[in-house]
Order: sequence, then structure tokens, then C-alpha cells
Amino acid sequence: TTKIESIGINPLAFARHFDYGKIIEENGRKIREFRVEARTTPVKLNEAVTFITWNLNGQVPGPTFRATEGDRIRVIFYNKAGGHSHSLHFHGIHEANMDGVRPVRNGAVFIYEFDAIPFGVHLYHCHIAPVTRHISKGLYGMFIIDPKEPRPPADEMVLIMAGYDVNDDYKNELYAFNGLPDYYMHHPIPVWKNELIRLYVLNMIEFDPVATFHVHANMFQVYRTGRTLNPTEETDVITMGTAERHILELSYPYTGKFMFHPHQDLIAEEGCMGYFDVREK
Amino acid sequence: TTKIESIGINPLAFARHFDYGKIIEENGRKIREFRVEARTTPVKLNEAVTFITWNLNGQVPGPTFRATEGDRIRVIFYNKAGGHSHSLHFHGIHEANMDGVRPVRNGAVFIYEFDAIPFGVHLYHCHIAPVTRHISKGLYGMFIIDPKEPRPPADEMVLIMAGYDVNDDYKNELYAFNGLPDYYMHHPIPVWKNELIRLYVLNMIEFDPVATFHVHANMFQVYRTGRTLNPTEETDVITMGTAERHILELSYPYTGKFMFHPHQDLIAEEGCMGYFDVREK
Amino acid sequence: TTKIESIGINPLAFARHFDYGKIIEENGRKIREFRVEARTTPVKLNEAVTFITWNLNGQVPGPTFRATEGDRIRVIFYNKAGGHSHSLHFHGIHEANMDGVRPVRNGAVFIYEFDAIPFGVHLYHCHIAPVTRHISKGLYGMFIIDPKEPRPPADEMVLIMAGYDVNDDYKNELYAFNGLPDYYMHHPIPVWKNELIRLYVLNMIEFDPVATFHVHANMFQVYRTGRTLNPTEETDVITMGTAERHILELSYPYTGKFMFHPHQDLIAEEGCMGYFDVREK
Ligand SMILES: [Cu+2]
Ligand SMILES: [Cu+2]
Ligand SMILES: [Cu+2]
Ligand SMILES: [Cu+2]
Ligand SMILES: [Cu+2]
Ligand SMILES: [Cu+2]
Ligand code: NA
Ligand code: NA
Ligand code: NA
Ligand code: NA
Ligand code: NA
Ligand code: NA
Ligand SMILES: [Zn+2]
Ligand SMILES: [Zn+2]
Ligand SMILES: [Zn+2]
Ligand SMILES: [Zn+2]
Ligand SMILES: [Zn+2]
Ligand SMILES: [Zn+2]
Ligand SMILES: [Zn+2]
Ligand SMILES: [Zn+2]
Ligand SMILES: [Zn+2]
Repeated sequence: TTKIESIGINPLAFARHFDYGKIIEENGRKIREFRVEARTTPVKLNEAVTFITWNLNGQVPGPTFRATEGDRIRVIFYNKAGGHSHSLHFHGIHEANMDGVRPVRNGAVFIYEFDAIPFGVHLYHCHIAPVTRHISKGLYGMFIIDPKEPRPPADEMVLIMAGYDVNDDYKNELYAFNGLPDYYMHHPIPVWKNELIRLYVLNMIEFDPVATFHVHANMFQVYRTGRTLNPTEETDVITMGTAERHILELSYPYTGKFMFHPHQDLIAEEGCMGYFDVREK
Repeated sequence: TTKIESIGINPLAFARHFDYGKIIEENGRKIREFRVEARTTPVKLNEAVTFITWNLNGQVPGPTFRATEGDRIRVIFYNKAGGHSHSLHFHGIHEANMDGVRPVRNGAVFIYEFDAIPFGVHLYHCHIAPVTRHISKGLYGMFIIDPKEPRPPADEMVLIMAGYDVNDDYKNELYAFNGLPDYYMHHPIPVWKNELIRLYVLNMIEFDPVATFHVHANMFQVYRTGRTLNPTEETDVITMGTAERHILELSYPYTGKFMFHPHQDLIAEEGCMGYFDVREK
Repeated sequence: TTKIESIGINPLAFARHFDYGKIIEENGRKIREFRVEARTTPVKLNEAVTFITWNLNGQVPGPTFRATEGDRIRVIFYNKAGGHSHSLHFHGIHEANMDGVRPVRNGAVFIYEFDAIPFGVHLYHCHIAPVTRHISKGLYGMFIIDPKEPRPPADEMVLIMAGYDVNDDYKNELYAFNGLPDYYMHHPIPVWKNELIRLYVLNMIEFDPVATFHVHANMFQVYRTGRTLNPTEETDVITMGTAERHILELSYPYTGKFMFHPHQDLIAEEGCMGYFDVREK
């Protein structure tokens, strides 16, 4: 059996870590197989708050699954979370019985199988009611489908915005990029000056309707939902509803530390804020 | 006089019902005439909640008016709601005195007349203060202007998202597609596999700033505000502020039941959720 | 020294007033210099509410800085607000030490210098925490960078939406275009029939995630973030997250008074609403 790999709660490793699964041959057909477990794990969000997450493989966000358009995908999903039913609902095109809206009970396993179509930036999340709770507890992640002809080389990374409702009042008290509030404020993401950076950005914040992703001192090219090979817009703020995701490309002409955060500044200041540390190559 | 036609509160009939008005000739000119009444009607939203709506012709949403670009439109509006003043404010291009911001008193009638320009998906709603209340009580509907050269044949339907503030606290407790919470969960909308579906989607939710319309297991082509003849974007989530409306085109390659809902999951789970039931033709 | 010019709190003057700075030559190089002061000023928002603003030059919004792409910009920023530290963070491309995230203490001065790139509609605002407060108290404005080849002649004006949290509860009780609630309701903005109007619209509302700017009885062409020379969309509602800004072009074929407001009608009815008064030329 495939071993479960996990980077744990580690935003710096997470940003550039892509899970390509394990290629297996079956009846002459190539399948990209992912083996994941729903778990329940306490995560220390800051000095004062430890939050019980529901998660995949001990990670929040879950692993970034990555495939090429047309691949056959198999996701072996074990619910080992010890209590509630969960599921994995993928965005993208697939059959009704693979849609991940049916509960997988604690201790049970379900195998999702579908073709990776179409290329773009997709996501997955638990779809058990209340969905707001199952998502904001941590059961979500990105699902990237590369076009067959790959995009140009770049420093690629994933940024997922999410909120934490720590007192169950349907409002978020804390926010984060890639799981931990303010992490990239204290551990800026190193990037190279003048190098093409390709951000895969997802808004997974529940309870707040949108987040307007912003980078300081720069502009980015937008590939909406990753569904285009050429950019359709240039800006430095992009308003994203829950489950919206885009590819944003940019490159820094100057060295130094530059912030990024949603421009709903309350969200930023409660933890959804970080720095790029741009260095001379 | 034209008889008032109404489909009552019937989301399944509503989705595919278009009101083309009555063609009349006047001084050698063709006029498309609509005859509508503001009414006050209790509507049972669920087992526990009956809500007093203000509505057009006993319908929530009001009738979907439909015309071709360049038609002359006449809307004979009777206020028979029995209390408050109301009005009909149309989106689209028209003269100031046809803008529908002036109150029409109970018992009074006003005749709105203007050219149907430009082609696209528009809307109408009462514009009496507080507008949040006059809209969320039910006085709104869609106004489709077809291009002179019609769009390709498709299974066309209207989906209007709205909220109900049942306790007058400027927050919504219930939401709906086409008037009734959770209706399409229990009565999925039948569609054919591989047939082109053309959705006319409007966000008419007050108090919540946006709704991000999502379909499961599929992607759609976006014609923003219906103002283009070719799509400008493909995605499965589109963030729509109050009064935003778009044409979305898609087709299901698989049979079965597929959800649609805004991805602000709190809105979905309080009634703004439904199924397409995709069948073999 | 350059004299500080200010139009005070005067929405009608503000809308069409552009601050081009003072051109100075330095070591053979042309510099566009702006001299501004952070101040603390009470502003009467309505009969009942006087609000202590933090502002630039006694104006809310601050002056609309305007330059041509490639100009060298120098902003001499005095903090004369009498208490808190403040800063000026500009959108656009610049070096890290010019990013305006470092506090400028009361009584101190800081000189921001950078190239005006790229052309488009940008903004500036104080970036001292809590940013929500420093922005909503009044420290923000627009920064227009014209393309080298200017846009076609038009009646150009600035419309900035903002909110006032008058009781410090992280919610807005009042809203305004260009500083004063409901001002343009009582003093409509005069425009000419059939003349091209170019709106530079910015959403600077904190606490509410978005505002969907709407004009009555008309449609506008959208130039997103002012980063294009040709429009990419036509509509009459555009959803803008905090810090989003666009160029919108339209022209009125009929005379009379026509409203504009965000279609989140609660925001409109608490002060963010106005009229154009369209006149025969
Ligand atoms: Cu979903
Ligand atoms: Cu910035
Ligand atoms: Cu309106
Ligand atoms: Cu989905
Ligand atoms: Cu900023
Ligand atoms: Cu309108
Ligand atoms: Na909470
Ligand atoms: Na904080
Ligand atoms: Na309510
Ligand atoms: Na429910
Ligand atoms: Na307040
Ligand atoms: Na008011
Ligand atoms: Zn779950
Ligand atoms: Zn989703
Ligand atoms: Zn910032
Ligand atoms: Zn009304
Ligand atoms: Zn409207
Ligand atoms: Zn769903
Ligand atoms: Zn400040
Ligand atoms: Zn900003
Ligand atoms: Zn209006």
C-alpha cells in the first residue's frame, strides 16, 4: 500500500510542495493514485489559541494534488477522523457518483475516480453539512490540472486564504495563508528578483463573502480559474468569492520585503498577511 | 384590457417561463405591452415560516419580461398592494421620467414606456426607500433583451437568488432560488445530457454583499451581463454583487443529480441550493 | 517651499480636481513634487454627526495625484496630525523602502520618491495598524497615472466610495461618495448630454467587503484598474472589493437627473448615493 506522506503544519514547505500521487499501471492504463486520510488534529494557531482541525493527512490545507489534463485520477479516501462523516468533493468535471456529496462514515473508505479535466486551478473540500464548518475546520485543498503543453518555467507556489471560527459563532476570529495565522510575516517567502513567480491563489474563507487578494508595490497578470494560457487582466487587487481561485503571475524588479494580504484589512490584520523576501539571485 | 397572467409561486414553472407581453399596434408602431399589479401575498417559505411578500402578479420573483432589442416596451403598473407606495425601476437605457424612482401610491397606476436597449440580461425592482426592504419583500424580476440575431438554440432557464429577512433585522434567515427555499432540492430541474443549457442568473440578495454562483461537476461559459455574443471566461464559480446578472452556458456529459448553489455555503444551506437532474435524451 | 493647496471638504470641487504637483528640475531631471500634510480635522457628516477625520491637507478624500507614466514622483509627507503615526502607502510599482509601511511619527517628515509606473488608476492610503481605522478615518486618495499617449478627451471625474465607523464598532453607520454623505443627492453633478464621461471610481470602504457600483438608466464601458486602453466589458453594475478601482466610460442620451450608487442598497441609503444632472449642451 502507498504510504501516507505529510508535511504536517508547515506553511513554508507547503507553499511549493505539490503532490503528484503515485503512477500505477492497471489493465494497460495509467492511473495517478492519491491515498489520503481524514484526521482530527489540534493545531496551535497562536500563543493563546489551539484549534481542533479536521484535516487530510495531518495537514491544513490538505495536500495540493497535481496532475496533467487527461490523467486518470484515483483518490483513496479513508475517514480516520474518529467521529463525524466526511467526504471529498472535487471541482472539475466528473460523474455524479464521484461528486463527493455522500457521507463517508468514520472508519470507512471511499475511492473517488475520474479524469483530470479540464486544465486549470481547481479545489476539493468536504461537502458534509454544515459545509461551512467542515471546510473551516480544515478539510480543503487545491487541485491543479496542468495543460498538456506545460506553462513556461516559473517559481510556482500555492497561497490559500482561510478563516478560523474558533468560538463557533459563524464569524472568523483568525485568518491565515496556508494554515497558520501571520506565519509568513515572521517567515517571509524567499523569491528571486526578476524571476517569474506563478501564484496559485485560492480563497477558502467561509463566513466572509469575499477576499480581495493584493500584493504590495507590484502588479500581476491574471489567468482566471487557471483556464487560460494567456492573461486576461493586469491589476494588484483581485476580488475572490469563496472557492474562487486564479493563477497570478508577477516578478519583482526590486529586492526587499513586500507584503501580500487581502485588502479587507480586518482579515489581513487578524492573520491573513505575509511577506515576500525578494533577493538578488 | 389584458388579463393578468401569473404562474403563482411555482419555481419549476417559473424557471422556463418567459413573459413576452402582448404585441399591440398603435399609430403604425409595434408595442410590447406588459400589464402587472403590485400585490401583497403571504407565502409559505417552509413548515415554520409564512412571509408576507410584496410582489408582482402574485409571483416571487416577478415575471421574466422578455423582448428583442429595439422593441418599444410598455409596462402598465397598477399598485394594488393595499398599503405602501411602490415603483418599477428597470435597468437598461431610458429617459429620466421612466426611471421608476418616483412612488406610485396604492390604488394608482403608472405607465412605463421605453425602448428595449441594449440587448443583455437586465432586471427590474421597486425603488422605494428602504430599497433593501422593497426588494427583499419580493418586488423584483428579470428583464431579458434578446439580440436581434437570436442566440443559438438552448434549454434556457432563469435562476434568481434572493434572501428573506423574516424578522426585520437587516439579515437574511432564509434564501432561495426562484422564490422558495430548498425547492429544487426536492424538485430537481430536469435537463438533458449533452444539451446546451443557457442559464440567466441574477443575484437579488440584499443584506449579503455577494453570492458566488457554483455548479457541481462542471464548468460554464460566462457572458457578462449578457452583453456579449461570445463567452469571455470559463469557470465554475462566479462572484456576483447585488443586481449582477450573467448568462452562463454549460452542458452535462453525465447523467445524474448535480447540485448548484452559491459557494458562500451558509447562504446555500439556508435554502439557496438545488439540483439539476440530468437525463439521457 | 511649495504652498499646501486644499479644496477642503467640497465634493463638487473634488470630483473634477486633479493635483498635478509642481514640476521641478533637479540635476537635469524632471520631478513632479507633491507636498502634503497629515492633519486631524472635525468634519460635519450630517446634522447629528461630527466626525474627527485624519486626512491629507484638510481634505477627505485626499488630493487626487495625477502624473504621466514614467514621471519621477516625489511626495513630501509631513505628519502634522498631532498624535498618531501615519504613512503613505502607494499602489503601483516601487522600491521596498518607498512602500509606506513604516510609521512617520507626529512632527516628522518622510519623502517618498518613485517612478510613476504603470499607467492606470492607483490609490494611496495610510498603512499604519489598524489599517481599517487609519483608512476609514480619512487617510486615502486616488493616484492616476496617465498613459504617455493620453486617453481621448472626456469630462473626467473621480468618485471614491468610503464608509464612516462613527462609533468604533467595526461597522459603518454612514457612507459617502467623495467624503460627504448624500452630498450629490442635494447637489447633483452637472454633466452634458451626449458627452463622453470618464469616471475614475475607487472603493475605499472598510468593514464591508465589496460595493457594486451602479448607474441608473445607462450602461458603462469598463477599463479594469485603468490598465487597458480599450474596454473589456459593458455593464451597469461592477462589484469592487476594498481598494479596487476602475475607469468607467459612459454618455447620457437623455437629459434629467439620474442616480448612481452601490447596489448594496443599505450602503446607498446610508449616504453613498448621488445624482448626475444631465443637461442639454
Ligand atoms: Cu463545492
Ligand atoms: Cu499595497
Ligand atoms: Cu437599481
Ligand atoms: Cu462543487
Ligand atoms: Cu495597501
Ligand atoms: Cu438602476
Ligand atoms: Na467565531
Ligand atoms: Na492581529
Ligand atoms: Na433577519
Ligand atoms: Na438548512
Ligand atoms: Na460603527
Ligand atoms: Na438614509
Ligand atoms: Zn467533513
Ligand atoms: Zn467547492
Ligand atoms: Zn498592505
Ligand atoms: Zn416597493
Ligand atoms: Zn437595480
Ligand atoms: Zn456544493
Ligand atoms: Zn494613519
Ligand atoms: Zn491598498
Ligand atoms: Zn437605484
